[in-house]
Amino acid sequence: MRNFIIVGHKATTTPNFSLEDIPGTSGRLDILCRAVTAAFVLSHGIRKDVCVHLILLGGEIPKTIRLVGETLRHLNPDERTTAALLKKALALPAAAEWAMSTSGIFVRTGGLAEVLADLKDAKLIYLREDGADIRSLDAGGLSGDAAFILGDHTGMTPEEESLIEQAGARVVSLGSTSLHADHCVVLLNWLLDTNVLMQG
Amino acid sequence: MRNFIIVGHKATTTPNFSLEDIPGTSGRLDILCRAVTAAFVLSHGIRKDVCVHLILLGGEIPKTIRLVGETLRHLNPDERTTAALLKKALALPAAAEWAMSTSGIFVRTGGLAEVLADLKDAKLIYLREDGADIRSLDAGGLSGDAAFILGDHTGMTPEEESLIEQAGARVVSLGSTSLHADHCVVLLNWLLDTNVLMQG
Repeated sequence: MRNFIIVGHKATTTPNFSLEDIPGTSGRLDILCRAVTAAFVLSHGIRKDVCVHLILLGGEIPKTIRLVGETLRHLNPDERTTAALLKKALALPAAAEWAMSTSGIFVRTGGLAEVLADLKDAKLIYLREDGADIRSLDAGGLSGDAAFILGDHTGMTPEEESLIEQAGARVVSLGSTSLHADHCVVLLNWLLDTNVLMQG
Repeated sequence: MRNFIIVGHKATTTPNFSLEDIPGTSGRLDILCRAVTAAFVLSHGIRKDVCVHLILLGGEIPKTIRLVGETLRHLNPDERTTAALLKKALALPAAAEWAMSTSGIFVRTGGLAEVLADLKDAKLIYLREDGADIRSLDAGGLSGDAAFILGDHTGMTPEEESLIEQAGARVVSLGSTSLHADHCVVLLNWLLDTNVLMQG
């Protein structure tokens, strides 16, 4: 399984944003929408072996939305449709347990610490520009489940860096050019597809 | 210079589409919008060395929109903003000569044949799933200007295949997994950025 964890530092935790102006009204939920489509959509289908965790920190209480490729429905390649699915998930009363919104989409309260705890058996890979070249990961480096951690446009806080380090993540880089999160996800999928990175 | 040519077989040539439903009202202009942002946007800036040609074939007369990184303004990473810029370009009265819409965005009548004629001195690379592995291109293969030709969700017609072949394009592949055009553009930019493919 390929897991992608994307942290939205200002991303709204309520459904009170406008689909007519996603970047301006949702705390840049558009960044997370694009990461979702980058993770799942193929030219004619959905990647079944992918799971995405969106960590939304722009509200009073953090929320996490989880999208599971195996059962995911209604996802189209365009940004607005994805935002509408997230809006539905955010309209659910969120609690500490996962609640299903639409097929393959779940929501709960909690943030990065909880997701890292869920994924404690996965190989954690934290993408940061000053990390080691991702192509230097040895062939066994991604055997079993992999979980890639990506930030949004604001970068991780020192507390988040610390959490990630304590979880034992390797810090790797896709190069010196600073890329959007969704573009990083596209690259990671391709590197895994083409066995530049090996996955068991 | 990196050129990307994307053919939208059903893409509208008029501004009469809805920003509230881009996929459903514009002949899938959303595919081209995402290819544009994939080509240009970096985490904090715009790629200056990129030029995108969108070939719109969903009207009575083909139109081409050209976006030039060096002078491109007002491009944001979200899909809707890009669609709004293309809408403005399509509202101009189009003729055989380029007319500027907003900074860095130009429109004219004409389609693939005209764009291939404009780029006759560039190394033409046609992305098709059954092509040679892109990593097998020799180091000098992309010295000078490169122009990558990509289709949309419907694939190229036999006539377009023939035009591309006559123009001397090399047929290369990013792998056996069928990817969206915008994801291909992300990968090509990265392969060039990291010198997996060399560019002069």
